[in-house]
Amino acid sequence: MNQVNEFLKESKARVDAVLDRVLPATTHRPGVLHEAMHYSMMAGGKRLRPALCYAAFEDCGGQGDAADWGAAALEMVHTFSLIHDDLPCMDDDDFRRGMPTCHKKFGEAMAVLAGDALSILAFHVLAKAGKAEAVTVLSEALGSDGMLGGQVVDILSEGKPCTLETVEYIHVHKTSALIEASLELGAVLAGADAERRKLYRDYGRAIGLAFQIVDDILDIESSTEELGKDVGSDVENQKATYPALVGLEESKKQARILVDRAVELAGRMGPRASVLADLARFMVERGN
Amino acid sequence: MNQVNEFLKESKARVDAVLDRVLPATTHRPGVLHEAMHYSMMAGGKRLRPALCYAAFEDCGGQGDAADWGAAALEMVHTFSLIHDDLPCMDDDDFRRGMPTCHKKFGEAMAVLAGDALSILAFHVLAKAGKAEAVTVLSEALGSDGMLGGQVVDILSEGKPCTLETVEYIHVHKTSALIEASLELGAVLAGADAERRKLYRDYGRAIGLAFQIVDDILDIESSTEELGKDVGSDVENQKATYPALVGLEESKKQARILVDRAVELAGRMGPRASVLADLARFMVERGN
Repeated sequence: MNQVNEFLKESKARVDAVLDRVLPATTHRPGVLHEAMHYSMMAGGKRLRPALCYAAFEDCGGQGDAADWGAAALEMVHTFSLIHDDLPCMDDDDFRRGMPTCHKKFGEAMAVLAGDALSILAFHVLAKAGKAEAVTVLSEALGSDGMLGGQVVDILSEGKPCTLETVEYIHVHKTSALIEASLELGAVLAGADAERRKLYRDYGRAIGLAFQIVDDILDIESSTEELGKDVGSDVENQKATYPALVGLEESKKQARILVDRAVELAGRMGPRASVLADLARFMVERGN
Repeated sequence: MNQVNEFLKESKARVDAVLDRVLPATTHRPGVLHEAMHYSMMAGGKRLRPALCYAAFEDCGGQGDAADWGAAALEMVHTFSLIHDDLPCMDDDDFRRGMPTCHKKFGEAMAVLAGDALSILAFHVLAKAGKAEAVTVLSEALGSDGMLGGQVVDILSEGKPCTLETVEYIHVHKTSALIEASLELGAVLAGADAERRKLYRDYGRAIGLAFQIVDDILDIESSTEELGKDVGSDVENQKATYPALVGLEESKKQARILVDRAVELAGRMGPRASVLADLARFMVERGN
């Protein structure tokens, strides 16, 4: 897994440099909004979605800085979703990655607006790549038939008996959609054709689902200290999770099956096939 | 003003037909989110921003349906801003256009998410025009150096003594930015050059400021019944308004000067010059 760690480290350095250029300075009015945006963007995180975008872009033979705009946009919309998910009217979380959440630090109004501003800035940055098609891919993944749809069904399911079909809807929409889009964006920005785009989407769906199942497992198994967020908050909120329905062992088995499928799909890819296969394995091994 | 009323009526019918096509059906999962989106989009409103987009598009000789995507996107982001502005952590308004606000009807979480989903869908719809430049114009107008920046400074100024410079910052950013963008989008979608785009932006700045000053005046002069929103809520919240600083008479005078400037700019425009001049006059005459 050294290859993955190296790739993640390089991708993080690259996208952080882009973010540093495109995020408005905190000295620029309104400073407090820009502070809130910086605070949440720089609160850590592995920059997994940017890494997936870069990997697909390079795998498709993409040249130039187009992937930088995609990578930065992906991390911004991911952060936007975390800020709004943490709000008192949503998951009501006080901590994220071991630090106070945006609304705990800056107040609720500023957290709503910082999330809004990051999602808008993401499209502004993505437009620099000059491809309307990239905007289509990202907006589809985020909208009411994507990530936001997943968040709504997640909220509506809280504290209620939940079917496996609903848990899968939530996982596919709330988590996988943006991970699929991360890969497809890299391909689109490199100018890949429809068939090739589908290969990355399928791979993205597999690792996205594996990622969410592992996340559910970690929420049960980990302690606050290790994860840096409220322990077992999913259990507390009676969240619809995969392990709650099929059990821990079956969940782990499903995650392994999904990763095997992703590794198989990576085998049909180009020069970055080996990194993409390792990224899939990395998905289920984090937290161990 | 018959020309304006006719043009507004036609534009509204046209953009409403587009919105009807692009808003997800309420039968489509998650239904409650789509209901909240429909509810706020269809709560009335003159569709002024779409009308400005159509007017500039036609004035620049634009052909085809490109302006439809711009017009629909503009109304969606405008509604997104109203939904979030009305939230309890922001202006905390219970009524909008005589109807319960989105969070009063659907709850706070759904209102945050419906606003988010409309802003995302706006970019999805705008991307149908195939011009990344259009995404740049819209996102710049909405972001932390545009509408959202204005909303932040507005919130931060509440209940505090406020300078004329700050009130002008709020007006330019919170209201004018999106009105300017409505006109510029029409021009961009029609393929206009930089010089022509600037003409529409300047006109948009003038009518945008006039519009906000008149809004402040109406907030003081009108009754709840007439306006369909909480009366004098700006005064109650000690909002930074133009009349509060320079007085009612001076405010009315400034609005008239701005409209004269807009009418003068409209004189340099093309086949839609007369409608655009009347639209400028309409800005200060509404509510009388």
